[in-house]
Amino acid sequence: MMRIALIGTGNLATHLAAALQNSTTIDLVQWIGRKTTPPKQATKGLYFTHYQDAIKTDLCLIAVTDDAIPSVAEQLINIDVLVAHTAGATSIHALKPIKRRGVLYPLQSFKENFPVDWTSTPICIEATNPKDLKLLKTLASQLSESVHQITESQRLQLHTAAVFSNNFCNHLIGVSQHITTKAALPFSLLHPLLKETFERSFLTRATDLQTGPAKRNDTLTQHKHLSVLSKKDAELYRILSQSIFNTHNT
Amino acid sequence: MMRIALIGTGNLATHLAAALQNSTTIDLVQWIGRKTTPPKQATKGLYFTHYQDAIKTDLCLIAVTDDAIPSVAEQLINIDVLVAHTAGATSIHALKPIKRRGVLYPLQSFKENFPVDWTSTPICIEATNPKDLKLLKTLASQLSESVHQITESQRLQLHTAAVFSNNFCNHLIGVSQHITTKAALPFSLLHPLLKETFERSFLTRATDLQTGPAKRNDTLTQHKHLSVLSKKDAELYRILSQSIFNTHNT
Repeated sequence: MMRIALIGTGNLATHLAAALQNSTTIDLVQWIGRKTTPPKQATKGLYFTHYQDAIKTDLCLIAVTDDAIPSVAEQLINIDVLVAHTAGATSIHALKPIKRRGVLYPLQSFKENFPVDWTSTPICIEATNPKDLKLLKTLASQLSESVHQITESQRLQLHTAAVFSNNFCNHLIGVSQHITTKAALPFSLLHPLLKETFERSFLTRATDLQTGPAKRNDTLTQHKHLSVLSKKDAELYRILSQSIFNTHNT
Repeated sequence: MMRIALIGTGNLATHLAAALQNSTTIDLVQWIGRKTTPPKQATKGLYFTHYQDAIKTDLCLIAVTDDAIPSVAEQLINIDVLVAHTAGATSIHALKPIKRRGVLYPLQSFKENFPVDWTSTPICIEATNPKDLKLLKTLASQLSESVHQITESQRLQLHTAAVFSNNFCNHLIGVSQHITTKAALPFSLLHPLLKETFERSFLTRATDLQTGPAKRNDTLTQHKHLSVLSKKDAELYRILSQSIFNTHNT
């Protein structure tokens, strides 16, 4: 049974801890964080507040904010355990003082109260030596059916693509919800359209699916839309419309 | 059985024709367009190229581009039939010369080769008199379980919200696909994240779901992302990040 130590108490760490505790082939033996009160998901005796406890495991996972990774790594210099961080846009070299370094990046948005389907969550791995890569692959495969060895450059690009698909789309859905609320209409009217928008992009290139006034340069309709938008949403509308127009007409 | 004439041969018209022809309670008796060759979906004897044929029905649906609606309406002045257009951002008054006017706006993105689930597609209706509103409601209810009487102003706002949820999100998904292609990675890696993005927005306010470097003003990560983007995608990234930051920090 693979023995794991986990460092961090944020959204990703909490979801990881739950998945690791649920696994019958993985033993989460130590969960380490700065909080003095154990997270409510931690079983009795699992939670520690000192990094030096992370030594009696096969693998130590660091799930803290990107900028805290180097300082956590500093405290793990002397342990002979594979240490992997879980960040999308941080180099494996952020773990530099540590000898055996790796990355285990789960590509999903982790929020409290939203359960994660680990089986379908892509996990991207990287390690500084083949033996450790194999260890990460074994762990990742026990969580997910979608495990991928990718380079640091690919991971950064994937993380950037995820910002467009998740962060930016979510922000625009928020604007959309704000408009329907202002119009005293239920946002559920847009659910079937949103569902099609995303599901069709799984089948074909979104560029080929593009419709709407921006693509066909229908300025009359665009002016009508602008008339109902707040100043800041109108600005966003103009810039996105211009970007669509440029993509399809240059 | 309700007798319908349909004008137009674009994506919406073609999908409407298919739905009307499939219905056992509606009789599509005339399909009228400018094309001399009948659309392949038209049964024999259904297709006409002259508007004056649209007179022997209970209801005439106009599914042409927004700016063509007034000129089509001009040619239907003398018929005593309810005439409804199907556009989201066009006033019912675009049909002005016609006595009995209505709107039947199906809120979905209609593309060739993508079948539409009419049962769940919201249909928004409006008419100049109660009797005609009832007629539109009867027709809409035979196509969909989601029928809504809304005002012209609500319809325009809904159409604007749809641009954010569909046109703009689709464009950003396109950028995302472009990034993964350039990184030699399959876009399917992002499917689980995209699925969560829109499904969670059905459950709660997207603003409350926002995560990412823009929200927390993580400029280090943002610079890494910008380094892998083309000049035009970087511009989009900056503006959307600023919009997210402003939403959550002002």
